[in-house]
Amino acid sequence: MEPVNLSEFEDAARAKLAREAYDYYAGGANDEVTLRRNREAYGEIALHYPVLRDVSSRDASTTVLGEKISFPVMVAPTAFHRMACAEGERAAARAAGRAGTIMVVSTLSTTTIEDIGEVATGPLWFQLYVYKDRGATTDLIRRAEAAGCRALVLTVDAQVWGRREADVRNNFKLPDGLTVANLAEHAKEMFPGGIPGSGLAAYVAQMLDPALSWRDLAWLRQQTKLPILLKGIVRADDAKLAVEHGADGIIVSNHGGRQLDTAPATIEVLPRVAEAIAGKIPVLVDGGVRRGTDVIKALARGAQAALIGRPILWGLAADGENGAFRVLELLKAEFDLAMALCGARTVGEIDRRLVVV
Amino acid sequence: MEPVNLSEFEDAARAKLAREAYDYYAGGANDEVTLRRNREAYGEIALHYPVLRDVSSRDASTTVLGEKISFPVMVAPTAFHRMACAEGERAAARAAGRAGTIMVVSTLSTTTIEDIGEVATGPLWFQLYVYKDRGATTDLIRRAEAAGCRALVLTVDAQVWGRREADVRNNFKLPDGLTVANLAEHAKEMFPGGIPGSGLAAYVAQMLDPALSWRDLAWLRQQTKLPILLKGIVRADDAKLAVEHGADGIIVSNHGGRQLDTAPATIEVLPRVAEAIAGKIPVLVDGGVRRGTDVIKALARGAQAALIGRPILWGLAADGENGAFRVLELLKAEFDLAMALCGARTVGEIDRRLVVV
Amino acid sequence: MEPVNLSEFEDAARAKLAREAYDYYAGGANDEVTLRRNREAYGEIALHYPVLRDVSSRDASTTVLGEKISFPVMVAPTAFHRMACAEGERAAARAAGRAGTIMVVSTLSTTTIEDIGEVATGPLWFQLYVYKDRGATTDLIRRAEAAGCRALVLTVDAQVWGRREADVRNNFKLPDGLTVANLAEHAKEMFPGGIPGSGLAAYVAQMLDPALSWRDLAWLRQQTKLPILLKGIVRADDAKLAVEHGADGIIVSNHGGRQLDTAPATIEVLPRVAEAIAGKIPVLVDGGVRRGTDVIKALARGAQAALIGRPILWGLAADGENGAFRVLELLKAEFDLAMALCGARTVGEIDRRLVVV
Amino acid sequence: MEPVNLSEFEDAARAKLAREAYDYYAGGANDEVTLRRNREAYGEIALHYPVLRDVSSRDASTTVLGEKISFPVMVAPTAFHRMACAEGERAAARAAGRAGTIMVVSTLSTTTIEDIGEVATGPLWFQLYVYKDRGATTDLIRRAEAAGCRALVLTVDAQVWGRREADVRNNFKLPDGLTVANLAEHAKEMFPGGIPGSGLAAYVAQMLDPALSWRDLAWLRQQTKLPILLKGIVRADDAKLAVEHGADGIIVSNHGGRQLDTAPATIEVLPRVAEAIAGKIPVLVDGGVRRGTDVIKALARGAQAALIGRPILWGLAADGENGAFRVLELLKAEFDLAMALCGARTVGEIDRRLVVV
Repeated sequence: MEPVNLSEFEDAARAKLAREAYDYYAGGANDEVTLRRNREAYGEIALHYPVLRDVSSRDASTTVLGEKISFPVMVAPTAFHRMACAEGERAAARAAGRAGTIMVVSTLSTTTIEDIGEVATGPLWFQLYVYKDRGATTDLIRRAEAAGCRALVLTVDAQVWGRREADVRNNFKLPDGLTVANLAEHAKEMFPGGIPGSGLAAYVAQMLDPALSWRDLAWLRQQTKLPILLKGIVRADDAKLAVEHGADGIIVSNHGGRQLDTAPATIEVLPRVAEAIAGKIPVLVDGGVRRGTDVIKALARGAQAALIGRPILWGLAADGENGAFRVLELLKAEFDLAMALCGARTVGEIDRRLVVV
Repeated sequence: MEPVNLSEFEDAARAKLAREAYDYYAGGANDEVTLRRNREAYGEIALHYPVLRDVSSRDASTTVLGEKISFPVMVAPTAFHRMACAEGERAAARAAGRAGTIMVVSTLSTTTIEDIGEVATGPLWFQLYVYKDRGATTDLIRRAEAAGCRALVLTVDAQVWGRREADVRNNFKLPDGLTVANLAEHAKEMFPGGIPGSGLAAYVAQMLDPALSWRDLAWLRQQTKLPILLKGIVRADDAKLAVEHGADGIIVSNHGGRQLDTAPATIEVLPRVAEAIAGKIPVLVDGGVRRGTDVIKALARGAQAALIGRPILWGLAADGENGAFRVLELLKAEFDLAMALCGARTVGEIDRRLVVV
Repeated sequence: MEPVNLSEFEDAARAKLAREAYDYYAGGANDEVTLRRNREAYGEIALHYPVLRDVSSRDASTTVLGEKISFPVMVAPTAFHRMACAEGERAAARAAGRAGTIMVVSTLSTTTIEDIGEVATGPLWFQLYVYKDRGATTDLIRRAEAAGCRALVLTVDAQVWGRREADVRNNFKLPDGLTVANLAEHAKEMFPGGIPGSGLAAYVAQMLDPALSWRDLAWLRQQTKLPILLKGIVRADDAKLAVEHGADGIIVSNHGGRQLDTAPATIEVLPRVAEAIAGKIPVLVDGGVRRGTDVIKALARGAQAALIGRPILWGLAADGENGAFRVLELLKAEFDLAMALCGARTVGEIDRRLVVV
Repeated sequence: MEPVNLSEFEDAARAKLAREAYDYYAGGANDEVTLRRNREAYGEIALHYPVLRDVSSRDASTTVLGEKISFPVMVAPTAFHRMACAEGERAAARAAGRAGTIMVVSTLSTTTIEDIGEVATGPLWFQLYVYKDRGATTDLIRRAEAAGCRALVLTVDAQVWGRREADVRNNFKLPDGLTVANLAEHAKEMFPGGIPGSGLAAYVAQMLDPALSWRDLAWLRQQTKLPILLKGIVRADDAKLAVEHGADGIIVSNHGGRQLDTAPATIEVLPRVAEAIAGKIPVLVDGGVRRGTDVIKALARGAQAALIGRPILWGLAADGENGAFRVLELLKAEFDLAMALCGARTVGEIDRRLVVV
């Protein structure tokens, strides 16, 4: 039966995916406290809606870093889409384009950024992990630029890899035939056989740079003219540092609960982070967004847009490009309805009084 | 076995109703957070009862907009009573009259307002949806007046329709033989066949006016001399606007959790709304009222009366008019007992100190 | 197997008692919110124990209204002990005496106060319901005095009867052969046959005086020289009224959650009630006491002693007098251990800092 | 399958241990409120991690009372290791040494302190119960000193024994062949046969000194030159008394929830205790530590190190010395990862802002 909400897309995906793939997508770090908390925190926020506003004509669109999107939801970077469906990241990119929003392509895609760029009909951003090998890193940036990516999203909460215990139990590695396509020349080192535990964690430990620090932002700025967003910030002091170091935006994120378990829910810390940013640069948020009302809350608490990660994977697994598109359309319809029920005709009319009367 | 409380009436109704009908009556929007919260919030409020007051003689009656009722509970407007029992709204109206209280008839009744008015033995109010077709709307008002309705209850939280997922899954439409009787001439357009999802939602999207706004209150005031109450207010600023725009009363309501999910529980927002109204017009409340003690709490927090919706449907489904009457009598007996145990001889003696010592 | 705590005594009792009797003893009003809350509230209070105090010699005894008891726990008044075991109230009185504490005999005993007084080895108090028939009431007082009762406990929260739904479902009435022994001459009217619902509730409605008020305390004072305690107070203002009207003590009680459902937990309101009393008269508390640590908390929050009701019934049902005695001894041992672990050598050393550091 | 976290080590242990042994190790006092609360409280504390700090080089080591340990986790004193595996305390001591940390040997070991000292490769501390027989006590101290123990940990919350109901039900006593080895000459009196309930509780009641008080610290100080830590403090005033009486350190502990049930969770009271100590002496903490993030929280709230008790027993039961070692290594790896994800390169960089932004 056609899923009626994003949660049912997860059900459909679980039924189709290999256990290892589902676990990799769905899991969080350690006891998954943050994974659950991301979601629960939205349910605890009440929407104090106003009434009797003419909502006959509504416009859900917004603009992020100069890019107009059809509603304030973007596709968060997630790894390994080809585990979900054969077309993988290409299907996701097409779905995002059809839905009129931005897709953030992951460094850890199973399709090269060039192949994704070729089929994309909407704007792409590129999520960047900084490799110990800075040459490999700049090479990635060059290729992302060439493929048409319009912004870099630097992940700042993953110099080391969170411990997702399901992956450890499953000795998680990429299925045969799939590679970290952007770095396929490194493929053999990536998932060394014969070691127990998560092969991905081993890869990260070997390749990514745990020394990445605020100082490196200056270096990164020199490598590209693209706007740079920092993804993974949960503290107000770090938000201020981001502005000071010239970031063009931040994403309040705890990596979907996959890195530091018991990190706070993103919607909980969003207001104080947004207050610290004080409108100087855009604030985005991810983690636990599953409902149109969640997007309203994210905006009412200071975000310019929200990103969804796992639901896109559930859409891909359920029905490829079309599934991912339906996930986005479903959420857009929910958001439009929630706007109307909150008396908002435009995204700009979603204000703080909805969540704090 | 004879139900001993309203919850057992729901059990009895569930056993008798078609799945689609039960789901339509019982369901709420999306994750049903507000539906549950409406109920739970009552359980979290403690009643700090005084003792040693002479409660040998008690009077549970009260007056709402000049209408004396036997206890401060009214019948909330709910749609489609004939799905519950053959006599439908006529049975409900007779039950309300026997119980000595007001029934608010829904625009979406399965019996015409004339047929209801004919059998009613107690006062009727008329719940109004404003149609895009203002002629149809004024026609409804005329007919309600002619049928003897003594007040209009304008629903202000439903210019667009909440998404009740069970109805979407069930492709909910009215059973054969039933119509939105007050607008039967529109019957064919109402539930167009062959479209997936909730037929009712499609009907609303087609017929009701999403442009309804505070400005329209002036228009509505010109159409009738009846008092006008606004149903669906949860914010203090909207309560003040209601007074400013000349409303004769408000009903603090979130549409039984059926419109905007994660709206606050009505009993939670009631005190600040009542404070904003400051006694200028009556404040009523619905949502989650299932116990005599709930009615005490609603009054102690600022309401003049409470309305019950679903329990009447459970009564109708369980045993027609008699079932609905027994629901009201049971609640009245619970309320009378709770008054006595709270040391209140009259409704006026139910004061704020019961809930805030 | 020998129960190791009071909860296991309830398990043992449930296995032996007729369903109607267990339900009558165990049940609370309506949704049993208060019944559960009484218990849960104790678990939420943390004991901040001090260490390194010489606890080699401890004295758990205390004095209530001049009566020395072996530990600050008394037997609360409960009805109908002969449903639990053949010896009924006589067994309970013997158990209380052996345990060195006071038993409060209920008006609604299944044994006459004379028969109980005859076998009692410890002090008795008499719980009084005021009947519409004041002659019957004074007669009860006379007989209680003559039987040696040393205080009257006037129940002030039961002029009307709480609705315990299990009793309604069970059409609860006394088993054949048992009567409200103190008023056996009224036996026939008490439980009129052939009416549905709780026979006890019908009895109360017929016999007890719903007009009982603060004014009646002066009348009651004239009837007896015994100290008078008021049982059922949960508010600070009522506590002050009790002092003003000359009460000799109060019992903070919500009738074990059997009267007004959603009344606050007694341990929650105890501090503000005790503060209002300001040491002028003794404050006792009942409701939810099942552990030695609960008794510590009751004392730390301002009570002079706690009373247990249902656990005595579980003891009687499990093993008659011996069972009730073991319940008291078990709780005494727990209390003594908790005192030691809290660094208290005497009841007087249990202070407020244990619960509010 | 190899356990991936400490909880799975408990699963493995439960599968191997005799019921009586598992219950003894796992159980808490009475309703086990404190046992659960110790654990839950950690999950409720959010870690507000900073980002973009160079964490390429990390040092998890710290120093406690001049003793360098590989990470801020020590082995808490627990009794009767030979119920878990044949090598018992010797296996635990070897595991602690391999992991580079301190083991606190329990007075109630099933191996003599001499035999443990002989095989230990890391530092040992000795947990001391004060016996009524002060000669036996000083003899224990002498032997602990001779065996190389470098500190005494005086248990201050167990002059009387908490009631662990599983042990009472199991009539818990040491399995045949095992003794309280340090006091084997008293073996016969220790677990007198033929009495019901916990044999250990009977032993404690007979042997340990319930008169132990602050005055005895002066006596104890005269018996040894070793530093003395007080284990079992949860209050700020007691923490100050500890400093005043010359203690060299304290362990915030509620005896793993085994003594006074409803004692507060240790992580909850840690900040105010640490504030009272004001850095004058080291503050350690035990109770509920199962994750690397828990250790971070303990340090961020004022502890210098945390101790784990039961997990060592689960390791021993699962796989002897190797199991206990893997427990420590797993926790060390989790702690190292959590440090990195919290942007801390050294233990000193774990600051209060992680838990209070």
